[in-house]
Amino acid sequence: MKDKRLRVDGIDKIILKHLMADARTPILGIARQIGISGAAIHQRLRKLESSGLIKGSKFIINPKALGYDTLAFIGVYLDTASNYNSVIKRLKEVTEVVESHFTTGNYSIFVKILCKDNEHLMFLLNNKIQSIKGVIRTETFISLDQQIDRQIKP
Amino acid sequence: MKDKRLRVDGIDKIILKHLMADARTPILGIARQIGISGAAIHQRLRKLESSGLIKGSKFIINPKALGYDTLAFIGVYLDTASNYNSVIKRLKEVTEVVESHFTTGNYSIFVKILCKDNEHLMFLLNNKIQSIKGVIRTETFISLDQQIDRQIKP
Amino acid sequence: MKDKRLRVDGIDKIILKHLMADARTPILGIARQIGISGAAIHQRLRKLESSGLIKGSKFIINPKALGYDTLAFIGVYLDTASNYNSVIKRLKEVTEVVESHFTTGNYSIFVKILCKDNEHLMFLLNNKIQSIKGVIRTETFISLDQQIDRQIKP
Amino acid sequence: MKDKRLRVDGIDKIILKHLMADARTPILGIARQIGISGAAIHQRLRKLESSGLIKGSKFIINPKALGYDTLAFIGVYLDTASNYNSVIKRLKEVTEVVESHFTTGNYSIFVKILCKDNEHLMFLLNNKIQSIKGVIRTETFISLDQQIDRQIKP
Amino acid sequence: MKDKRLRVDGIDKIILKHLMADARTPILGIARQIGISGAAIHQRLRKLESSGLIKGSKFIINPKALGYDTLAFIGVYLDTASNYNSVIKRLKEVTEVVESHFTTGNYSIFVKILCKDNEHLMFLLNNKIQSIKGVIRTETFISLDQQIDRQIKP
Amino acid sequence: MKDKRLRVDGIDKIILKHLMADARTPILGIARQIGISGAAIHQRLRKLESSGLIKGSKFIINPKALGYDTLAFIGVYLDTASNYNSVIKRLKEVTEVVESHFTTGNYSIFVKILCKDNEHLMFLLNNKIQSIKGVIRTETFISLDQQIDRQIKP
Amino acid sequence: MKDKRLRVDGIDKIILKHLMADARTPILGIARQIGISGAAIHQRLRKLESSGLIKGSKFIINPKALGYDTLAFIGVYLDTASNYNSVIKRLKEVTEVVESHFTTGNYSIFVKILCKDNEHLMFLLNNKIQSIKGVIRTETFISLDQQIDRQIKP
Amino acid sequence: MKDKRLRVDGIDKIILKHLMADARTPILGIARQIGISGAAIHQRLRKLESSGLIKGSKFIINPKALGYDTLAFIGVYLDTASNYNSVIKRLKEVTEVVESHFTTGNYSIFVKILCKDNEHLMFLLNNKIQSIKGVIRTETFISLDQQIDRQIKP
Repeated sequence: MKDKRLRVDGIDKIILKHLMADARTPILGIARQIGISGAAIHQRLRKLESSGLIKGSKFIINPKALGYDTLAFIGVYLDTASNYNSVIKRLKEVTEVVESHFTTGNYSIFVKILCKDNEHLMFLLNNKIQSIKGVIRTETFISLDQQIDRQIKP
Repeated sequence: MKDKRLRVDGIDKIILKHLMADARTPILGIARQIGISGAAIHQRLRKLESSGLIKGSKFIINPKALGYDTLAFIGVYLDTASNYNSVIKRLKEVTEVVESHFTTGNYSIFVKILCKDNEHLMFLLNNKIQSIKGVIRTETFISLDQQIDRQIKP
Repeated sequence: MKDKRLRVDGIDKIILKHLMADARTPILGIARQIGISGAAIHQRLRKLESSGLIKGSKFIINPKALGYDTLAFIGVYLDTASNYNSVIKRLKEVTEVVESHFTTGNYSIFVKILCKDNEHLMFLLNNKIQSIKGVIRTETFISLDQQIDRQIKP
Repeated sequence: MKDKRLRVDGIDKIILKHLMADARTPILGIARQIGISGAAIHQRLRKLESSGLIKGSKFIINPKALGYDTLAFIGVYLDTASNYNSVIKRLKEVTEVVESHFTTGNYSIFVKILCKDNEHLMFLLNNKIQSIKGVIRTETFISLDQQIDRQIKP
Repeated sequence: MKDKRLRVDGIDKIILKHLMADARTPILGIARQIGISGAAIHQRLRKLESSGLIKGSKFIINPKALGYDTLAFIGVYLDTASNYNSVIKRLKEVTEVVESHFTTGNYSIFVKILCKDNEHLMFLLNNKIQSIKGVIRTETFISLDQQIDRQIKP
Repeated sequence: MKDKRLRVDGIDKIILKHLMADARTPILGIARQIGISGAAIHQRLRKLESSGLIKGSKFIINPKALGYDTLAFIGVYLDTASNYNSVIKRLKEVTEVVESHFTTGNYSIFVKILCKDNEHLMFLLNNKIQSIKGVIRTETFISLDQQIDRQIKP
Repeated sequence: MKDKRLRVDGIDKIILKHLMADARTPILGIARQIGISGAAIHQRLRKLESSGLIKGSKFIINPKALGYDTLAFIGVYLDTASNYNSVIKRLKEVTEVVESHFTTGNYSIFVKILCKDNEHLMFLLNNKIQSIKGVIRTETFISLDQQIDRQIKP
Repeated sequence: MKDKRLRVDGIDKIILKHLMADARTPILGIARQIGISGAAIHQRLRKLESSGLIKGSKFIINPKALGYDTLAFIGVYLDTASNYNSVIKRLKEVTEVVESHFTTGNYSIFVKILCKDNEHLMFLLNNKIQSIKGVIRTETFISLDQQIDRQIKP
């Protein structure tokens, strides 16, 4: 698998830089800037997509514009008798949960959650997270400030 | 400010659902499906953008395709004499750091990092993170499995 | 609601300063000092009360005079199956509990308690707090000295 | 000292119950209700005050009406070389700090603080608390909900 | 009770110093040294005993001479449903437990224990302590060196 | 060394039981009870003393009679640059410290201390313990109740 | 037993040094080098084996050559009702577990485990370790780098 | 590299099983048992060695026979300013340190150490480990019992 890891050349990087910044950048504009045809760019994009490097593109929603002012991390301790997959299934039903990780260290599952405010966070903890069968304890950290939020550069 | 929080109607939601899944979905296709003009969709998108709800769009890069197989969280303890802004500035220079949070709880700064493997993680800890002036101790968790990775739905 | 947040002018502040220090300060004395009528002060107080700024007034009891020499904080870990509201209801029945908080971090509920002495604290822990259904563990800190105890200044 | 601890009789309790609920309750109204003279009540109040049971009376300000929406606890670790009194002196200058305790357990000083919002809390942590000479680390808990807030009953 | 706290004068201190060091010091020898009669010393001792200052006297056994080479502390976490008195009763049956404390902080009960060696400690943990109904977890510290072991000086 | 560990026979145990309970029990009384001569008991005691089993005898002082109402444990974290022996020497100067242990686990030194009350404990922490060069942090537990306090039985 | 602790002389040490480095070193080669007969070496080895100093010899397998790239430590918390021996029996069935220790401190059992990668570690945690009856929680540390791996020198 | 990972067939496994149990098992005996020539076995061993699967062979010394009765783990916290490589160099000079790991989680370096007894462990902690420049704190766990000690099976 690792042998198939594609090599990304300088032209790929310029194309990706434009599209990682704005997925709707017109291909022809990029083509003109680099000095190759739009078809060549489309071909390169198809290659990058089939290699798995490009997972897709998406509009980025600003959670604060929807009133989601509070970002928190929740360390979830699971009962060893619980089934990891069934807990994840339940967490997926909580739309405010935007990431889940099975981590080394203290917690079984580490969750990133977006809430409207402290009252909302408390509601989610009490009624959506701690009520999942198998969850025995949670530990919450609130992000007071986020300075870095970016992707790995190819 | 909160009074300006825009109301997102059902048509907005359909448009956003398409573009959050794939930023390059042709507007005309969406227009045909909803039964309104492309111009109307463009107008709605401009409104959503000017309201701040849409932060932009981007190509999503798969870090694993670039060999970044290990996702870790690093809790960073800072010396109280250190300057938060200068530490953040130094963390921004570490391209593998994709998120930073100033959190309540034990740590001063909580960092999400992408590494190629354990050896790379160790290199970053030893040479890039712990060497920042003001960092007195770090605590690392490795994500063994990520099941949820999504945005808040409008 | 936030739009209704009243503006407190300099005269309000002088009135409040007097009454926050001693709720029974004669209004006429304050009136004379400021140089406005007692009726004007009463009007301002009604405005501050209807705005919610003044929650009321109360006599402050010195717990030490009643033999309550020990102030402690108790971090309470709850069983996730327990009902927060029913635990709070039970805590309210323990008259020595003077504050309860649902907090981020380790504990589910964080309690401030006043006790006569160490023996009394142990009695309360053993017979009143730990016996509440849903409480799985407690962690106690004793305040050896309190230097600051005040309200926010308007 | 403890021998001097005053005995509070049933009539004292009725008087205190009224004044602890509302410090400005007219004494004559209470007198009428109990069936003793206003002078007798004033005499009892003087006795309770001289005994130290009544510390005073005050108007209670609602911090939320002033925009203080966030209540947090901060555990402060001190450098053993630091002077407790000088740290307290500095904490007193931070008007948002409403309580300070020297506690058993992990922390040297345990602080209760009122903030307008998360941004304000972060500002206070970074610029007012952690910058005090002798403070080596802080640990913050946010109160998501306060259900109990009362005095000990005589 | 506190009013009865006896005053210990200089002569009492000399007497106690001798007897705290060696309970079998001949009274007459002490008497000669101080220059008072043996009867006077016996009278003082009776006073100190009736005041409760002297709890008694005892031969001190050296645990190492009996093969008890390992001193350990065990923090015991109790199930909140457990009865403190019944756990203490069970601990009293474990003759190697020489002290028990109900403490503030993490643990419910804090125990000092003497063991012959590590194997013995493990046996006691597994078969005598952790098997007590209500004990949910233990945390053990071994004393590698004891430098101070003394009484408060009167 | 361990081969020299003396065997304690039934008669020795009866003698020790009496003297561990009360070091001043008349030897002749014990002799009469057992049915051997006082000289034989003195010989046995000399043997037990020379073997190291008996470390001596002492009057037991009741700390509460001297006003020492509070027993606490202090976990002391040492700077690795500090000298263990010099810290112990300083701790020995604090007469309220009655035990010191170098332990496995979190702390460098674990101390048992007797204090008159919470104020006294705070004074000792601030002025006597934390001021020792090399002490970087302390963690205090108060014993709210001691049920077991005894020696190992021979 | 300790009296039988054999003394290892200089010749023994040379022999052991060779065989600890490579168990298949020809005895005759060692004999020639030292200048004694092969029979003498065999005799010495028999003595060292019968004394228990030599536990045996073994081929050392490189786990990385078998794809075991990840070494981790797992702290296992046991239910006090669980039987240590039965948990160990179950752990022995997990071939990836290469060491188990009953330790002082936080954990009941401390385990060293070899895994192919993070996914494998997660599988083992979820399906082999946490599913053992009596295991209530685990805490995992990954070794990012091992620099020392050797035996005690005789 | 991973493509070169050799396949170990059934005959290899039988050979390895014998030599992992006892490195000095005569090759001819194994050959006879399997029914192939000794030369074939030697050829297979050369292949396994050149592939890196066999790291070598060694005599296993029983530390208890040398008086090393105590196995402990030491979590070492490093000063972030310290140089990992120089600390490892110093740890290598401590012959009682048999393993060192750079781990995720709380500690910087995690060490396995063999000591003669508790006194020896204390000596090593005080004089050999904590005195290394860059070590700021250590945390020690003693293994009271080791039940599993084995290699991964090919």
